[in-house]
Amino acid sequence: MEITNAQRAEVLVHALPYIERYNGKVVVIKYGGNAMLSDELKDSVMGDIVLLSLVGAKVVLVHGGGPEITEMINIMGKETKFVDGLRVTDAETAQIAQMVLAGKINKNLVNLINKKGGTAIGLCGIDGRIFEAEVKDERLGYVGNITNVNAQLVMDVLEKGYIPIISTLGCDKNGNTYNINADTAAAKLAGALDAESLISMTDISGILRDKNDPSTLISKITTKEAYEIMAEKIIDGGMIPKVNCCIDAINCGVKKVFIIDGTIPHAVLIETLTDEGIGTMFVK
Amino acid sequence: MEITNAQRAEVLVHALPYIERYNGKVVVIKYGGNAMLSDELKDSVMGDIVLLSLVGAKVVLVHGGGPEITEMINIMGKETKFVDGLRVTDAETAQIAQMVLAGKINKNLVNLINKKGGTAIGLCGIDGRIFEAEVKDERLGYVGNITNVNAQLVMDVLEKGYIPIISTLGCDKNGNTYNINADTAAAKLAGALDAESLISMTDISGILRDKNDPSTLISKITTKEAYEIMAEKIIDGGMIPKVNCCIDAINCGVKKVFIIDGTIPHAVLIETLTDEGIGTMFVK
Amino acid sequence: MEITNAQRAEVLVHALPYIERYNGKVVVIKYGGNAMLSDELKDSVMGDIVLLSLVGAKVVLVHGGGPEITEMINIMGKETKFVDGLRVTDAETAQIAQMVLAGKINKNLVNLINKKGGTAIGLCGIDGRIFEAEVKDERLGYVGNITNVNAQLVMDVLEKGYIPIISTLGCDKNGNTYNINADTAAAKLAGALDAESLISMTDISGILRDKNDPSTLISKITTKEAYEIMAEKIIDGGMIPKVNCCIDAINCGVKKVFIIDGTIPHAVLIETLTDEGIGTMFVK
Amino acid sequence: MEITNAQRAEVLVHALPYIERYNGKVVVIKYGGNAMLSDELKDSVMGDIVLLSLVGAKVVLVHGGGPEITEMINIMGKETKFVDGLRVTDAETAQIAQMVLAGKINKNLVNLINKKGGTAIGLCGIDGRIFEAEVKDERLGYVGNITNVNAQLVMDVLEKGYIPIISTLGCDKNGNTYNINADTAAAKLAGALDAESLISMTDISGILRDKNDPSTLISKITTKEAYEIMAEKIIDGGMIPKVNCCIDAINCGVKKVFIIDGTIPHAVLIETLTDEGIGTMFVK
Amino acid sequence: MEITNAQRAEVLVHALPYIERYNGKVVVIKYGGNAMLSDELKDSVMGDIVLLSLVGAKVVLVHGGGPEITEMINIMGKETKFVDGLRVTDAETAQIAQMVLAGKINKNLVNLINKKGGTAIGLCGIDGRIFEAEVKDERLGYVGNITNVNAQLVMDVLEKGYIPIISTLGCDKNGNTYNINADTAAAKLAGALDAESLISMTDISGILRDKNDPSTLISKITTKEAYEIMAEKIIDGGMIPKVNCCIDAINCGVKKVFIIDGTIPHAVLIETLTDEGIGTMFVK
Amino acid sequence: MEITNAQRAEVLVHALPYIERYNGKVVVIKYGGNAMLSDELKDSVMGDIVLLSLVGAKVVLVHGGGPEITEMINIMGKETKFVDGLRVTDAETAQIAQMVLAGKINKNLVNLINKKGGTAIGLCGIDGRIFEAEVKDERLGYVGNITNVNAQLVMDVLEKGYIPIISTLGCDKNGNTYNINADTAAAKLAGALDAESLISMTDISGILRDKNDPSTLISKITTKEAYEIMAEKIIDGGMIPKVNCCIDAINCGVKKVFIIDGTIPHAVLIETLTDEGIGTMFVK
Repeated sequence: MEITNAQRAEVLVHALPYIERYNGKVVVIKYGGNAMLSDELKDSVMGDIVLLSLVGAKVVLVHGGGPEITEMINIMGKETKFVDGLRVTDAETAQIAQMVLAGKINKNLVNLINKKGGTAIGLCGIDGRIFEAEVKDERLGYVGNITNVNAQLVMDVLEKGYIPIISTLGCDKNGNTYNINADTAAAKLAGALDAESLISMTDISGILRDKNDPSTLISKITTKEAYEIMAEKIIDGGMIPKVNCCIDAINCGVKKVFIIDGTIPHAVLIETLTDEGIGTMFVK
Repeated sequence: MEITNAQRAEVLVHALPYIERYNGKVVVIKYGGNAMLSDELKDSVMGDIVLLSLVGAKVVLVHGGGPEITEMINIMGKETKFVDGLRVTDAETAQIAQMVLAGKINKNLVNLINKKGGTAIGLCGIDGRIFEAEVKDERLGYVGNITNVNAQLVMDVLEKGYIPIISTLGCDKNGNTYNINADTAAAKLAGALDAESLISMTDISGILRDKNDPSTLISKITTKEAYEIMAEKIIDGGMIPKVNCCIDAINCGVKKVFIIDGTIPHAVLIETLTDEGIGTMFVK
Repeated sequence: MEITNAQRAEVLVHALPYIERYNGKVVVIKYGGNAMLSDELKDSVMGDIVLLSLVGAKVVLVHGGGPEITEMINIMGKETKFVDGLRVTDAETAQIAQMVLAGKINKNLVNLINKKGGTAIGLCGIDGRIFEAEVKDERLGYVGNITNVNAQLVMDVLEKGYIPIISTLGCDKNGNTYNINADTAAAKLAGALDAESLISMTDISGILRDKNDPSTLISKITTKEAYEIMAEKIIDGGMIPKVNCCIDAINCGVKKVFIIDGTIPHAVLIETLTDEGIGTMFVK
Repeated sequence: MEITNAQRAEVLVHALPYIERYNGKVVVIKYGGNAMLSDELKDSVMGDIVLLSLVGAKVVLVHGGGPEITEMINIMGKETKFVDGLRVTDAETAQIAQMVLAGKINKNLVNLINKKGGTAIGLCGIDGRIFEAEVKDERLGYVGNITNVNAQLVMDVLEKGYIPIISTLGCDKNGNTYNINADTAAAKLAGALDAESLISMTDISGILRDKNDPSTLISKITTKEAYEIMAEKIIDGGMIPKVNCCIDAINCGVKKVFIIDGTIPHAVLIETLTDEGIGTMFVK
Repeated sequence: MEITNAQRAEVLVHALPYIERYNGKVVVIKYGGNAMLSDELKDSVMGDIVLLSLVGAKVVLVHGGGPEITEMINIMGKETKFVDGLRVTDAETAQIAQMVLAGKINKNLVNLINKKGGTAIGLCGIDGRIFEAEVKDERLGYVGNITNVNAQLVMDVLEKGYIPIISTLGCDKNGNTYNINADTAAAKLAGALDAESLISMTDISGILRDKNDPSTLISKITTKEAYEIMAEKIIDGGMIPKVNCCIDAINCGVKKVFIIDGTIPHAVLIETLTDEGIGTMFVK
Repeated sequence: MEITNAQRAEVLVHALPYIERYNGKVVVIKYGGNAMLSDELKDSVMGDIVLLSLVGAKVVLVHGGGPEITEMINIMGKETKFVDGLRVTDAETAQIAQMVLAGKINKNLVNLINKKGGTAIGLCGIDGRIFEAEVKDERLGYVGNITNVNAQLVMDVLEKGYIPIISTLGCDKNGNTYNINADTAAAKLAGALDAESLISMTDISGILRDKNDPSTLISKITTKEAYEIMAEKIIDGGMIPKVNCCIDAINCGVKKVFIIDGTIPHAVLIETLTDEGIGTMFVK
């Protein structure tokens, strides 16, 4: 059915209270997984971000890109070592990660934002030393724990009206590059920016009480309840670190943290600018 | 038919290029006539203005209120003199106009904007001497010609993020109040503010080649064509001053001037944020 | 006797220490009563305010206007109900109050300030939601208690160099207008602005120990002494709310609060810029 | 006769239009001669300057001090050479001038301004290279012609709210100090500051058509008329350079230049803040 | 021989006039070729840049990286087509260029600057649309001509005190990436930034009259002389585009353009902060 | 031996970490004694200060000048009284001190800084009431104890990029001038400015354990150790007040305080920009 322009205006008006809520507030969007693989979805997500930015939110996009790094390692024919089943990130691998994240994925997102009429600036954790890191486990090489977040550059860039897009790489005082966990990085950055909300775009619909039954989606959860649910082993392995990051973000002062299914078209807008909550919201 | 949230998001995304066009630009809205009489419409128009403001436009609302002034004169039992069929605005009448415009209509609009979540500030042409005026015709008393527009106060208020709502009264150096034409005032203010567009909300659908046939609406017209159409007497008497104001605004540097039917719900949003042009647009 | 220009210069020089004291400080002047009824006095008071403003004080003028509201109610032939002898302010009465205060009295004061060379801006408690209010007593209708003062708009306007003139109306989130007590409003606003002083222009000469003997004027009183004097019933009924407002203002952080007789020509200037104290000064 | 406080207030009000005229404008006061010799007068002039500054003028005080330099040369027992009857300013003499002007006279004036409640800053033409100079006549040593005026420091100091007091010394790129003519320096600085007026405080009452008859004072003169009067030799020798400086200042863009008798108490205030013109005003 | 600390201080003092010359001025450094291949040199150049930045210059580093792109194409086993001997840059090749320039080289330089104590930010021509480009020759694919330089982002970043490092990639409104010539890009950016100087770090010592005789180095050349020398075919093929870029930069308003041998340790510092000119300087 | 430009660049690079340490930090230099007597040294010290300032430090120069005051008293043939062997500073003597310090020494230093390419501004404790003082001992006249330091003027001047040079005179509310101890003044000002370091240029090499053996120089000392050393009478009389000032400065929040031998060429630069510590450093 065709939507008339009168209906369009009506829809815009209904978005008003939601727009007011985000006006001038920092929203960190963690972008990754399948939502980042399809060109069509990527295009659509970037449009959503430009829109959110234009209606007054200070949007910060944080992305990782594990699968593309692995693909490049394979194309380049680099052999990788494993310790206890975990891949070792030697200096060369860290260079590949840097190249793929900060050079390929990041600048492609900048290009897409620009195409949609926004003005983006592509950064990584090395720029302005946003993410300072240290070795987590000597045997795994340049896999980093974040030791410090310098949010000043991101704030400067937001103040000047740009949309910052940030690759989750870390650096140290000796000029080394680290691969760091994107969920953790997004959570810590959101905390350092005193963000209104952190939206984690994944490929699941949120937290399910029964992971095989979509109707058991938990739409709102406190950090206390989240700890309980993890204790009860309702959440399976892969979700646990994500949930922990959500809890961390709340503990760092972020008001609301969302896990949403990024493969739903305009999931971010539906979550932020309509009365429908489509994933799981974490609150204090 | 119910519009889904997915469709809502879709609609928001389609508004993106229109939002970009108005971002940071001054839009002067001349508000009056029937669009101002119905409470429901008034409520709806104020919502549209808050929305336009939130998505980044610098909206200035200019209003008159002839019928309400007449009504008050009657309630107060004041006798009015006429010269050549035109009402004489003596000092007392000018006081009533001031009271009704700046006290009643203006602050009620401020209240409505505030209720919709915006933050308005109600001004009149006396505040900051926005409209300096002089007597147009001695016999008619305090009916003013605008001699100077001081737009600084309006710019200061926009810079601080408020939505200015302006009653079209004039003042002079001796402390007199003048009733001034609202269409002219809006056009001159739009020029002084270097506005992107002036939207005149009337109760007609625009300029019609045949005033009895809505299908003859002219959707776009140059100032040159407008002069021709007036010469050909296609436009009838009441419209001529309005059309002249539109032409004046274009000549003062306003990019686009619209005459739209303010009684259509969300007419302003349809005109600014969708691909539908619903009235007549004047261009250079 | 004619004052020579040499004497004039001498007088200006003597004003120096007083000017220094008010430089850059906020002075709230509550204006009302008889001082507001005579055109000549009004003219003179506005001149005083422009002068105070030019010599560096940040003057805020707050006014009510009960008698003029009553007069308008009568002219308009509106019947008013009474409960326990108190007039009921129904929505229509609140509209009349709004019209008279914000449209007539307020903008006339703006006109006078402008005529004297200052640049004023006329606001009411609805603009920028300066005075948020709620119903005080259901039976009395829209008579409001102030629940919150938003002083930001007043500060923005002072920062830009305008003289704000404020009608004491209140508003709520539903778009209703309230009649609020002008003395209370001035005291609360002075507190919110962290004012150096609040000057209440009345038609009495200050607090008298014996209300029939002008020579018993108390020129300086602490809030503690003021409580005592009220306990001793030295102050009669009409003065009690005014004195309470003065005490409130001091408790809200205003340094000095004055009650002066506004019908004395240039009473404000004599109080602020000469060594003569002409009313009663409240201090901590 | 005692002036009452009511009269004082009246006087302040009469000063209003004059205060408005100088608000935010730069006023350069050239101070010297007998007006600078009496302690009482000095005290009074500094009070006038603080007052002018407090009511919104941006006052810059420029002073020389020939007699005190000569006195110090004598005390120090330094012999001075003469060429064609003009004293030679060798490096040592320039040092004495610097010491007396910038160290003694200047800082004493700063002390007096501070005592009156203003906040002054004492500068000389060497600070921030305000007056760049070159040798005028090799035989006379360090007597300088001004080659360039750097007004930035003075503007920075005014912007921060200080009252700059400036000794008329010059400097060059080699670190030499020059004695420069104070009248010329004041005129050039007033031009560089785009001053509203330059007030030259001398010990004569202005330009007289007959120098022995005070009643022949010319109260207003155009630069053209001033040239004529000099051609007619109406002005005697000592006045010619002063008149030339006044003309120069007008030609540099200063709106009004005054020669007044600085020994009249509060001459500056009478000239600026009352309706009495007490000297000669030069205009374009 | 050991340099004593006294001598060190002496050296610093000698650098003073050179430091003064660059204080607050924009210096664009085009970095490439062999100077970028050795790790030791790279480290040293980054130290020089941090130093220049600390002593007050606003340094912008522009880099390309042709050889590393070719190397990556080979590693990735991508086949490349050639037209008339020139390599075709298809979309995939442009992606590789983007990845290598903006991801690898650029962020490694950021890491090095950070290690030296500066705070760098790595950008490419896509960020903030710094370099807008279009296809130069349809047959060669995404090889771009610069159509527009948006220097605002670079200026914002300099204003905030960061050292911008810029990869010479171009973008268009459709989100395509272009490989653009680094010398041209540096020259155009220097022009848009109104730079004091552009320093092109190459692997030759400057322009030689006889390319086999280092003693024939031309240390200073006007643009007119440079045209003549090219007309006389004194400069061989490879140098011609570089010389043209230098001339272009001068024509765009850059004050001085240098070609220096970047393999000499601290060549940039020797050129900017000592009295030795080590390459060829172009002037108007 | 000649230092090559390559070596010069090397030296500059080695200064990098030291420059970084002082970037944007306030450094107060107390200048006096023999280091101030030789013209050559004075010239060299001013060059050092301009350099420190250009590389980003906010340098404040504080100077006294006892010997030159005494010399002037003698030249002027003024007789001085003594009380208990201490010279009485009557009003006339205070005037001479003011003249010599603020007029002669101060402005000569300004001239030298300007000559070196810096832009200095010469102030004394009277300007902006930097040093408020009171009589220390009635019998000694205008010898002042500092009662308050107003550092705002110095901060304003630094913010605008000037190098402030400050004579250590004091003032009071009655317009009197005081001679104050320069070491104390420098220490208190450094504290009020929250300085990174205070460098006291004396004519001794620092604190020696055995004052006859230069090899016993203490290069670093805590305030606690300094108290001990004074208790042990290792430091002789003349040094005690200096050491007390150093301790005071540390207690006021200055990070590091140095006593260095100002007669060593470029002592300030060696201390701040090389790895050699040449005097005694006091720390918490």
